[in-house]
Order: sequence, then C-alpha cells, then structure tokens
Amino acid sequence: MDKKTLIANIKAKRSFLCVGLDTDINRIPKHLLTEEDPVFAFNRAIIDATADLCIAYKPNLAFYECAGLKGWTAFEKTVRYIKDNYPDQFLIADAKRGDIGNTSRQYARAFLAPESDFNFDALTIAPYMGEDSVTPFLVYPDKWVVLLALTSNKGAFDFQLTEDKATGRRLFENVLERSRQWGTTENMMYVVGATKAEMLADVRRIVPDSFLLVPGVGAQGGSLEEVCRHGLNKDCGLLVNSSRGIIYASNGTDFADRAAEEARKLQQQMAQWL
Amino acid sequence: MDKKTLIANIKAKRSFLCVGLDTDINRIPKHLLTEEDPVFAFNRAIIDATADLCIAYKPNLAFYECAGLKGWTAFEKTVRYIKDNYPDQFLIADAKRGDIGNTSRQYARAFLAPESDFNFDALTIAPYMGEDSVTPFLVYPDKWVVLLALTSNKGAFDFQLTEDKATGRRLFENVLERSRQWGTTENMMYVVGATKAEMLADVRRIVPDSFLLVPGVGAQGGSLEEVCRHGLNKDCGLLVNSSRGIIYASNGTDFADRAAEEARKLQQQMAQWL
Repeated sequence: MDKKTLIANIKAKRSFLCVGLDTDINRIPKHLLTEEDPVFAFNRAIIDATADLCIAYKPNLAFYECAGLKGWTAFEKTVRYIKDNYPDQFLIADAKRGDIGNTSRQYARAFLAPESDFNFDALTIAPYMGEDSVTPFLVYPDKWVVLLALTSNKGAFDFQLTEDKATGRRLFENVLERSRQWGTTENMMYVVGATKAEMLADVRRIVPDSFLLVPGVGAQGGSLEEVCRHGLNKDCGLLVNSSRGIIYASNGTDFADRAAEEARKLQQQMAQWL
Repeated sequence: MDKKTLIANIKAKRSFLCVGLDTDINRIPKHLLTEEDPVFAFNRAIIDATADLCIAYKPNLAFYECAGLKGWTAFEKTVRYIKDNYPDQFLIADAKRGDIGNTSRQYARAFLAPESDFNFDALTIAPYMGEDSVTPFLVYPDKWVVLLALTSNKGAFDFQLTEDKATGRRLFENVLERSRQWGTTENMMYVVGATKAEMLADVRRIVPDSFLLVPGVGAQGGSLEEVCRHGLNKDCGLLVNSSRGIIYASNGTDFADRAAEEARKLQQQMAQWL
C-alpha cells in the first residue's frame, strides 16, 4: 500500500488505529477451544468486529511461531482472511527481524514479496545490525520497513537512550538520523512506544514527515492523548496500536463485541484529533 | 546442553565447528529438486557428512520461513533428524529474535522450552530492546541465549561501534557489560563476527569466560587463525560457524563429500589450536 492510500484510508475512516493480533491460545475464550482452529476462529471474529474501526492489523509472529506448524497455519489463514475480506487494511508483520544482507533478503522474500504467501505491507525490523540488514527490505514498491527506534518496554532504557559521544545524539536518534538515508518517508516508518510519548517531540524533530507505529497504548500504560499531542503531523503520521486492550477485553462469549467497544472508544478519540 | 557437556564434546571431537544450515533452495544441487522435500534431503546429506567434524548445527530461520509452511516442515524435519541421530550436537536456532517481555516469552516457548516442537539448546537474540526482551529466554535450565554483540556485516559499524558518552564504552561493549548481569557464563553466549577478529581482545576483556559464537569465517572473509589467536580461552570458549563455505562447496552430486572436505579442513586447524 502506498502512502497516499494509507492517508486516504485514515481520513475516510477517521481512525489511525492498528489492532494487534497477539493471539495467545491460553487467553482466548474457552468456548472457542472446540473449534478446529481456535486461534483463527478468534482472529476472524476480532477482525470482523473491528475492521470498520481500524486501518491496520498487526499480528505478532511470536504468538504463532510458538505453536509450530499449527501456529503457522493459523497465521496464514488470518492473513488470507484479511486480504480477501478487508483488502483496504494495512497489514504489518510484527516480526522484529534483521540479519546480514544475504539473510535479510530471505526474510524480505518471505514477508513482503508480492509473490510470497503473505505479501504484507510492512514488517518490523530491529536496527542493531545496521544498513545492510535493513535495505534488503526496501526493494519492493509500496512495501514498508517499520524500524524499531524507541520501544515501549522498560529495557528501552538499557541501550536506546545512551548518548553517542561523537554526535551527541541518543542511540534511537542516531537510528532515526542514519536510517533516513536508507529509505524515504514512502517506505520507512518507525516504532516509537506510547510509554515514552514525551520523547515523540524529539522524534518529530528528526523525522517530521514519517509515519510512526506507536505501540503501548492500553495494557502497557501509554496515553493516546499524549501520543497525539506530540506525534501527529499534517498527514496524521501515526498508526497507534492496541493489542491486549482490545482483543482480550472479555474472555466470554461477548469477546468480539467487547473488542469492538474498546476499538470504538479509541477510534472516537482519534476522530477528534483528526 | 550444559556448559560442561559442550566443553567435553569439543575436547572429544577436537573441534569447535558449527555448521550453519542456511539452506537456500535456489542454491542446492539441481538433482535434489526431484526429492519430495529437497531442502530436508540436502540438510540430511550435509548433516550425515559433517556430524563427526562439528559440535553444533545452526539453521537460520530466514531460509525456512521464506518458503512458508513447506519451509517450516523442512525445518522441523531437520531439527528432528539431528536430535534423533546426533543427540550430542549443540543446536542453535539462528533467529535473532527479541521483543517485549510478554512476546519474548512466546518465542522462548517456541524454540527453547523442553516441551516445544524444537527444544533447541540456544537461540540468537538481538539486544536492542534491552533486559526484559532477553531475560524471558533465560528461564530454561541448560538452555542458552546467544546475544548479538558485534556482528560480522558491514552495518555493524553503523551503531555497534558508537561510543557511549557516559561510560566511554562502545555499544557492543555496553551490551556485553550490561548483559553479564542478566545471565551467567552457563546460559549466555555472544555473537562476535570473525570479520572483526581484532576486536575479540576487547570482547575478551569484558567476558573472558563466556562462549562466543563466531560467524563470518569463509564466505564472509574472516580468518580462523585470527579468531583463535584473540578469542580462545581456557575452556576453548569459541563456536566458529561456517555456512556457505561448507554447504555450498559444490553444487554437483558430490556436494556432501565436498562439504565434509571443507568441514575437515576447518576441524584440522581447530584441532591444532586446542
């Protein structure tokens, strides 16, 4: 999906919500466990209930890989279901990959290539290994790298905020500054955690025009208001993700309705900011 | 596998060679393409030819993920084949994972948990997200985190060598120093690229007793001699990986014999250093 279409979708739906499909078989409603593929049944219901309210879905690979082949099957079915029924959704594989160039090319083929099983719009990438671990993901037109900059977890403080003696910039700022030269605002976004919303202003000084994928609203404690105040730009420029706060709003038979309710709350706040 | 057993295997085989199973269907011998599962057929032949000469195998997940479900099947069969036939091999999943704690726990379950399909001995992890992205992998007895410190690629220079103003340490040294407090020399190793062998001395100053997984010998241009000179410690302390230099030594019907030949050359050099 190109940037223009993404922005048009945001404006049409008055939403920049991304729903994180971090589906853990141990947390889904018990009545689904009799389904042939409980994880897919759960995802399908969540997707049908929220597709009007969000513009992106982001399955995190870990939750599928941990079930081996069964997990990959549920993952493939979920991706296929979204593509077939909601083709206007921006699809992000949250995989946090990144390896030497030869290997990154394989990951790019797996997730982003138009001829791949998945054909995702975007893939999250860890920057630790530098330029040649990232650029192999930038070769497919209208596909995106979502590079980790400032993550939502406590461990972000361990390395991401260390200050580089040569440039005076913190590591996450170095990542933003360097990687701007690898891609463009049309094929590169950044992860910036909602739990560090006050640093969004610093992020925006370096990448004013880039889209940011913002996790951490909801279960992790980030505030949508703070994110919007510091992060919105003229194109909106934000994809705000909520996973657990939406998909596990209830673990009864009303789980899909309750997920829609939580998604709607966020969408309504977003509409006011747009 | 615990550290004592790993060291005993190295001494018994007079080898600290790890064979990287980065199996690309486009590079394997053409005559294998008629097999039901060409990737597995290739891996099995490589494993049978090299198992006497190495003490570890390291499949890189990217090469299997890029083929979707078929790739995962070949991956599972490869892991099962090694476990069933060569149970003394140290098995490393080269996945370079790392996510928020909740998610890292899923990856740990997938790859390291004794009850998982894979039950690997070790998993490579990227350090960018800090402590809580790494510690969930340290909960299984005799299982290992292999943390990226100084990688073998050119992009390593982008961030890993930036010098932290507060500590005066370069990022990879900060990673070594901080992470020592998260695990022990019995459950944490580090990736240090052979292409930066001269920095192994700096690495050894911080983690004298840790095992290092050293990629980059062979196709990437690193020298085994330099690695040994700067990296060996009293326990050996090295697992030196070669992937392409061994598995693609020939793409004719003699590929397995030629792989064994290349593996033997490395093993014989290693025997002299032990």
